[in-house]
Amino acid sequence: MRLSRYFLPVLKENPAEAQIVSHRLMLRAGMIKQAQAGIYSWLPLGFKVLRKLENIVHEEQIRAGHIPMLMPTLQSADLWRESGRYDDYGQEMLRITDRHGRDMLFGPTNEELITDIFRGHVSSYKDLPLTLYHIQWKFRDEIRPRFGVMRGREFLMKDGYNFDLTKEDALHAYNRHLVSYIRTYERMGLQAIPMRADSGPIGGDDTHEFLVLAETGESEVFYDSKVTDIRLGEREIDYDSVDQCRAVMEEFTSLYARTDETHDEAVFNQIPEERRRSARGIEVGQIFYFGTKYSEPMGATVQGPDGKPVPVHMGSHGIGVSRLIGAIIEASHDDKGIIWPEGVTPFHCGIVNLKQGDGEADAACDQLYAALSAIGLEPLYDDRNERAGGKFATMDLIGLPWRITVGPRGLKNGVVELTSRKTGESVELSPEEAVKKVADIYAPHHPHLSREEPMAGRSFHTWL
Amino acid sequence: MRLSRYFLPVLKENPAEAQIVSHRLMLRAGMIKQAQAGIYSWLPLGFKVLRKLENIVHEEQIRAGHIPMLMPTLQSADLWRESGRYDDYGQEMLRITDRHGRDMLFGPTNEELITDIFRGHVSSYKDLPLTLYHIQWKFRDEIRPRFGVMRGREFLMKDGYNFDLTKEDALHAYNRHLVSYIRTYERMGLQAIPMRADSGPIGGDDTHEFLVLAETGESEVFYDSKVTDIRLGEREIDYDSVDQCRAVMEEFTSLYARTDETHDEAVFNQIPEERRRSARGIEVGQIFYFGTKYSEPMGATVQGPDGKPVPVHMGSHGIGVSRLIGAIIEASHDDKGIIWPEGVTPFHCGIVNLKQGDGEADAACDQLYAALSAIGLEPLYDDRNERAGGKFATMDLIGLPWRITVGPRGLKNGVVELTSRKTGESVELSPEEAVKKVADIYAPHHPHLSREEPMAGRSFHTWL
Repeated sequence: MRLSRYFLPVLKENPAEAQIVSHRLMLRAGMIKQAQAGIYSWLPLGFKVLRKLENIVHEEQIRAGHIPMLMPTLQSADLWRESGRYDDYGQEMLRITDRHGRDMLFGPTNEELITDIFRGHVSSYKDLPLTLYHIQWKFRDEIRPRFGVMRGREFLMKDGYNFDLTKEDALHAYNRHLVSYIRTYERMGLQAIPMRADSGPIGGDDTHEFLVLAETGESEVFYDSKVTDIRLGEREIDYDSVDQCRAVMEEFTSLYARTDETHDEAVFNQIPEERRRSARGIEVGQIFYFGTKYSEPMGATVQGPDGKPVPVHMGSHGIGVSRLIGAIIEASHDDKGIIWPEGVTPFHCGIVNLKQGDGEADAACDQLYAALSAIGLEPLYDDRNERAGGKFATMDLIGLPWRITVGPRGLKNGVVELTSRKTGESVELSPEEAVKKVADIYAPHHPHLSREEPMAGRSFHTWL
Repeated sequence: MRLSRYFLPVLKENPAEAQIVSHRLMLRAGMIKQAQAGIYSWLPLGFKVLRKLENIVHEEQIRAGHIPMLMPTLQSADLWRESGRYDDYGQEMLRITDRHGRDMLFGPTNEELITDIFRGHVSSYKDLPLTLYHIQWKFRDEIRPRFGVMRGREFLMKDGYNFDLTKEDALHAYNRHLVSYIRTYERMGLQAIPMRADSGPIGGDDTHEFLVLAETGESEVFYDSKVTDIRLGEREIDYDSVDQCRAVMEEFTSLYARTDETHDEAVFNQIPEERRRSARGIEVGQIFYFGTKYSEPMGATVQGPDGKPVPVHMGSHGIGVSRLIGAIIEASHDDKGIIWPEGVTPFHCGIVNLKQGDGEADAACDQLYAALSAIGLEPLYDDRNERAGGKFATMDLIGLPWRITVGPRGLKNGVVELTSRKTGESVELSPEEAVKKVADIYAPHHPHLSREEPMAGRSFHTWL
């Protein structure tokens, strides 16, 4: 993308309404604009990141064998009356009446609707196990929405639901979700620690919340510092293997890590003192096993192997997709702006032309742009007639992990400068070497990138 | 995908509530399930098609230089009061009150919100031209929702908005949209004819509606039969070229083609009698130029080259993404079920194992599955223990364009059968030849497909 043709309305001033750094930086980098309290428009740069997160979530859910679908935003009040939650849910549920006077609501979650779909179509244990999920906009009428997309009212969430014949099978689904979530967060450059939590209005016995440590987190958390050393990394997991998934679950959840809701001072004090930590965390996901809490009242049964009807064992599993952007920025920024992890950056590499209008500099930038695009990467080329300082400030603010700087002086020596946003370090390279270096950096994130030949229309597919 | 692990709840009986063929087939093929009147859940197969259409729309809009973003579903009533449309819009607008008593609405369209974003961030003519678009769920509280997703209440729509300094520039944006829309529909296997239409509540002088001819269409249309011979095809269009875009617009709109709203019997009768046609059509998109209708009352001005503020010239442009699925099915089906055009099919190729459990047949199917997946195609393998007749009926119903049938008898002769859903014709081929044939068929739709080597994780990217 050439910046002269893009819509990137960066702000020079810090917006007064933003209390935390992610909110401030998202506004300043032209990622979002508030439409009304707690409701945001995603401007092009913000939408691009949102879409990248959504894609990572889809890829990891599909890898785990979970099946994507899409439920509507508006739901019938009658279904929620069946489960008994219509009256339990307080004012955070946005209640709506249509022109015929029928009660509806903007879904805050989908246990009822998915259970209704299940009971309408599945009748035999032979169709189990089954896990369905969707990524859809939800609404929670927060009394005081704040912190930008971190605590908004309209928010994008992935929620998945497993249906199993037995508790044992459902616990495997629980573990499968835990593994897939850890992989999802790691691909986004985040460490999200699964912590024992409280089940709240969803209900159920088993639940873990995934927390990203950050000073601005809304939850107080307590943990054994050793828990932060664990990584899933690149290991191959067979999601059908009960043992493999359980082993990962145990590895990640055996050490003490709890939110204040389930914190137990006595147990905590058994950790060696030098490893006891209390901190703040941002919730970015939660998994639940709740057995037959919804299937029994709503009649979601299957015929078991013995021919008798049994209510299915269920769980639900959520990832806060839109709030994750806030969490990533809280965890990765400096005083100049955002520092995107490579897995989620909106553009792979910035190109800064130090002397727009200089024939050689323009040509070199065009060639870099073409070369990066040809291998399937998306550069953002600042081709505006601005002074270098302004261009650098914009690139630092929007946080692309890598920047190539092109100027007449360097070109005389046959070099451009490749700079890391994170470390600020620069190396001088020939343009060809710079392209190769950037391609190598992104190879792990894009196994399908062509490294050898241009792929026609390839860059469009980054939207897919 | 292996059918034994998928969620494809096909119905044997015709659902009583479905009056038109697309609604009936979408229910029977397990693509959608009604959640309440005019509101649908998209089951996995339906969601997959929806996502494919969405991707085509994104690709063609980006190709035309338009910039994707995302506005929220809920909007503030105050903005609509500014434009004067809050009171004009009737009961089809779903009005909502939040916990603080603030008036909101579920957006049926976004002229106000996008104009608000524009005026908040753009102040100079130098930032023009600018076209922003999004694909978002919208709501229209139809008094009698019917015909499934064709006339639903919650529907997915692409809407784009151009901002230009002059009427001339805005008309270029209009033409650019017309070209990109024709290309979009053609990629979906549809002929959608641009017809002069009425602007309705959006307002403005220039507007064309895109109609797919179908008996079940809601509009009566009148046209010169020669208009159905025009195709955009594969020609390269430079979307920056005013002349090229205007030439396409003139080519597609010079012949008589109007909806009943603008039909003129006198002009119609000047067409040679044998070319006069009246028929029914399904609206799948509409483009508008409405000048300063929103920019003036809402104060969306830029500083012109002479330093004076001028209201921008705007247009809006919509594609009904969810209803397009209905339109495609209305235009492409037979008495056995859906016939997907290759550009939008949920899976590229079905694999039917005639003798599940037979070692050789199972192995051959597994190899076909692996080979198709390795080149980036998505097969749907019916690996259930069902008789062949049931498997064929399911494949015909869900309408994959190509099917490979594998049985012990054919394998003895080293062949499988490749069958076209459209013609019903079959050819016997070696498994390798069958894979190559299918790859050749899809090559134009997937320029990025690897034809030579497996691409790790590639199939996930069909979700991107």
